[in-house]
Amino acid sequence: MALRTIEWMPAGAASLVPGRVRMIDQTRLPGELVYLETADVRELWAAIRELKVRGAPAIGIAVAMGVVLAVQAEDTADTAALQKAVDRAAEYLAGARPTAVNLFNALDRMKRTAVRLGNRPPAPFKEALAREAQRIRDEDAEMCRAIGRHGLTLLRDDCTVLTHCNAGGLATSEYGTALAPVYLAREQGWTIRVFADETRPLLQGARLTAWELMQAGIDVTLICDNMAASVMATGKISAVLVGADRIAANGDTANKIGTYSLAVLAAAHEIPFYVLAPTTTFDLAIPNGGHIPIEHRPAEEVTEGLGRRTAPHGVKVHSPAFDVTPAGLITAIVCERGIARPPYETSLAQLLRGKKPTP
Amino acid sequence: MALRTIEWMPAGAASLVPGRVRMIDQTRLPGELVYLETADVRELWAAIRELKVRGAPAIGIAVAMGVVLAVQAEDTADTAALQKAVDRAAEYLAGARPTAVNLFNALDRMKRTAVRLGNRPPAPFKEALAREAQRIRDEDAEMCRAIGRHGLTLLRDDCTVLTHCNAGGLATSEYGTALAPVYLAREQGWTIRVFADETRPLLQGARLTAWELMQAGIDVTLICDNMAASVMATGKISAVLVGADRIAANGDTANKIGTYSLAVLAAAHEIPFYVLAPTTTFDLAIPNGGHIPIEHRPAEEVTEGLGRRTAPHGVKVHSPAFDVTPAGLITAIVCERGIARPPYETSLAQLLRGKKPTP
Repeated sequence: MALRTIEWMPAGAASLVPGRVRMIDQTRLPGELVYLETADVRELWAAIRELKVRGAPAIGIAVAMGVVLAVQAEDTADTAALQKAVDRAAEYLAGARPTAVNLFNALDRMKRTAVRLGNRPPAPFKEALAREAQRIRDEDAEMCRAIGRHGLTLLRDDCTVLTHCNAGGLATSEYGTALAPVYLAREQGWTIRVFADETRPLLQGARLTAWELMQAGIDVTLICDNMAASVMATGKISAVLVGADRIAANGDTANKIGTYSLAVLAAAHEIPFYVLAPTTTFDLAIPNGGHIPIEHRPAEEVTEGLGRRTAPHGVKVHSPAFDVTPAGLITAIVCERGIARPPYETSLAQLLRGKKPTP
Repeated sequence: MALRTIEWMPAGAASLVPGRVRMIDQTRLPGELVYLETADVRELWAAIRELKVRGAPAIGIAVAMGVVLAVQAEDTADTAALQKAVDRAAEYLAGARPTAVNLFNALDRMKRTAVRLGNRPPAPFKEALAREAQRIRDEDAEMCRAIGRHGLTLLRDDCTVLTHCNAGGLATSEYGTALAPVYLAREQGWTIRVFADETRPLLQGARLTAWELMQAGIDVTLICDNMAASVMATGKISAVLVGADRIAANGDTANKIGTYSLAVLAAAHEIPFYVLAPTTTFDLAIPNGGHIPIEHRPAEEVTEGLGRRTAPHGVKVHSPAFDVTPAGLITAIVCERGIARPPYETSLAQLLRGKKPTP
């Protein structure tokens, strides 16, 4: 059973409103599992800003629920005042992590919902907004589960997979993307083991992936990134599962730094390399990975990101946040609509148009 | 100009004895460059035990000089008492790092020298022992320089190399093995740039390699291990240079974990992959790498090696200290006697017999 990263907790059984947001405080991981529960939109804003909740899908859910918190706090008989409260809350929450695309999409959707509700009386207006936020969460969960179902067809009982960074439940509502087939395999009673790259510099694999898999009772082994090749050489690894930040029309995939390295190593060891990501990461407007800009991170994350300084002062550091894995190294791309195989130019476009690609 | 990791400092110009040992306190790196100077064999013993001096060749030099410290402290006209002091010091120093092979070799050599000196009077006896310790140091420096000279023929002016862990001057007397060609290139006025893997879990690349190259004014860029592939993909890297802990008869090479990963990545990017190591690491008694036992390190080095805990309590960790790079991925093996090319079964044996292998 996967963890619930973020959820809406209604006060009573009859209606969603009033309610509270309950989320795992990810800044306390992996040390302790602490839930943050709040009915205060300012506290929610701070939680997003301070990375207590992180991962694009989870942030989208958080701000949608934040709009509901703001509106339910308005004690008014005037729906027009509630409409204004929605707009104010959306503007306020947009400032919490100003570069997150899912955040803007979720806020736009809440605003459109409010407009559609028109001047419905306050109680059903609030209830309908809460339902919409809940729907955003449920759609995310269903999207993850669908990725998991498709991904599961690529695995078998009694297998060991290797993953990188955290494309797990903590970045989404509960199942994650790359880890979704792992959770589903476990639900089906399969034996599945995971090797998790610690993922330097910020150690999302050690801090988050290892933690959430242990919570779910899944057999996980932590390794340093430079150990993946020697584990592959033992013949133990059935598949590599990774997420994606952006996928170009030809299948070239940008993901956390180190993903490309794993893809080269997987090819050399004849291990299938699967990218698992929602269709929202497909960017068919860019023909290939050469058009994906790569963010570079501050040197300090490498030289002193772990509590103390571990490299000389003034040392030059090269720290790209992402790398691009060429489509030729990717065995298949799994999204909520199915599985794309090379050539990706046609299979990704077919999936986006809702047509099942030829297997 | 490379740093002097460890050296003998005579008090006067006329003779080596009395003198002191001067070494870089490596536990203070990369924070500060502090030299430890001592004429006290107990302080030297503690410095070895506490890893203030590390790296097999450097430890060998340290204990040889330690024998001299013990003997020069004996105020006696009786050479037989000095012979006993040599044996006592050798036994004492052998306990500082009981598994280091170079340490035992150096102590054996000092004891044999004492035996050969017979009952020569105290002053020349002490002087001859000091000369022998100096010779061990000079031979190490010459061995490194010879590796550097051979390695340099594989590089060219205006190039960028990538290295892993620390096979540099800090592990030897001054030039190192894998880094020796880099220092020689610099001496020749070549432009040479180095990308240094930080080398998890213990970060020898960040702490030691980056530091010593910066001290020598060499352009060094620190990366996380999982970034090497993306740097290679840019086409910037002319060669990968690594050391070796043990080389089997067929050329399979055990070295710091992550070396095998680099070798696979280098092959995929058509970058030459060079192993640089003294002939003392050749172990022709073992036919291939399958016979090299791999030490496994404690989980804590991965989960809390950096000052604070960064992974869940109780997480399973797989942390091999070394991996084995198959000979097929190694472009050449460079030792102090020359360059071995595949097939290594013949070229390594020829080098050990002192014959120049056919190119």
